[in-house]
Amino acid sequence: MVNESAMTADRRRLEPDARRAQLVEAGLALLKAGPFEEVGPAEVAKAVGVSKALVFHYFASNRHLQVAIAQAAAQELVAELATDPRLPNDERLAIGLERFIDYIERQPDTYVAVARGAGANQQLLEVYEECRREIVQLIAEAVGQPDPSPMLRIGLRGWIAGVEEAALQWLDGKPIPRSDLVDLLRRAGLSMLEALPQRDQYP
Amino acid sequence: MVNESAMTADRRRLEPDARRAQLVEAGLALLKAGPFEEVGPAEVAKAVGVSKALVFHYFASNRHLQVAIAQAAAQELVAELATDPRLPNDERLAIGLERFIDYIERQPDTYVAVARGAGANQQLLEVYEECRREIVQLIAEAVGQPDPSPMLRIGLRGWIAGVEEAALQWLDGKPIPRSDLVDLLRRAGLSMLEALPQRDQYP
Repeated sequence: MVNESAMTADRRRLEPDARRAQLVEAGLALLKAGPFEEVGPAEVAKAVGVSKALVFHYFASNRHLQVAIAQAAAQELVAELATDPRLPNDERLAIGLERFIDYIERQPDTYVAVARGAGANQQLLEVYEECRREIVQLIAEAVGQPDPSPMLRIGLRGWIAGVEEAALQWLDGKPIPRSDLVDLLRRAGLSMLEALPQRDQYP
Repeated sequence: MVNESAMTADRRRLEPDARRAQLVEAGLALLKAGPFEEVGPAEVAKAVGVSKALVFHYFASNRHLQVAIAQAAAQELVAELATDPRLPNDERLAIGLERFIDYIERQPDTYVAVARGAGANQQLLEVYEECRREIVQLIAEAVGQPDPSPMLRIGLRGWIAGVEEAALQWLDGKPIPRSDLVDLLRRAGLSMLEALPQRDQYP
């Protein structure tokens, strides 16, 4: 916490949490405009109009900053995938898929770079994993299994990986209509849910 | 080509292609016993009983050797997945899945390392990609579409990624019977094929 007189003395001086959030937000905006490897402390500092030293005050390294930005991007995606629980699951699945594809269409280069490159870095991989776990949880709750069975969890993880890969393949030239892609993936998800043993099926 | 008198002079001296194959084979055997990052020129040289310099004569760098070993591993997998064309597709899918899971169960650490780490290296990623393309082709031919439609190709790529991810998740504690995993993935594959538009469906 910054002390109050300092706050009064310099209006540009933000509370540490707010400053940190501002830096991450600027990084997220840069990430939407360009490739991940070009979003570093220098670029973020320039975008916010602060010194690079200030960025390093909040993030010990370029890697720490990148992980924070990736976490923010993942949170944004997960928030977009939350759908209205009053709608039928079939429809929620279609809406979620539409939003996922919107998301990657807005930032295809970043998506490809993160999806293909996450293995290179343990911390980014962890952000990626956490994002997938949250999406599993989102869907598990939607189908009335907030504590998903191992079978449902494995099935959902497989389906999510299939969605990601199919979307990556589709981005390369978009050889089929987007609606066909969404429909294929929606059906795959429903089939997977229906293929679960009776005890694991959604109501 | 080595000249004939040299061949006669030293019985251990192999033709270049045979020597290269021997080194790759030794690397593949090491890969089955331990982690990928521990299979390097020194280990291969030791296993074959030749100098490290000889290994470097055939492979310009550790990376070149690793890529050659990864290619051999991928070829071995693809060969195992080829099933008897006289069997019904449903059965071929189940057999292929069984063999895939056998394959990763025999070398789980390597599979996890390669699957999660391939993004780190462009050449390994390319080997991985080529392996997936070959599996797509294998299945496309099995369902009577040797020149797969974009929809079938995208669907198969998605399904394969789903199989890989589900298998990775399953390896972590094997929380469901192996037969349930195979059944879930087989059904997912069949559903995907059935969900294709009529023009794309397999006969």
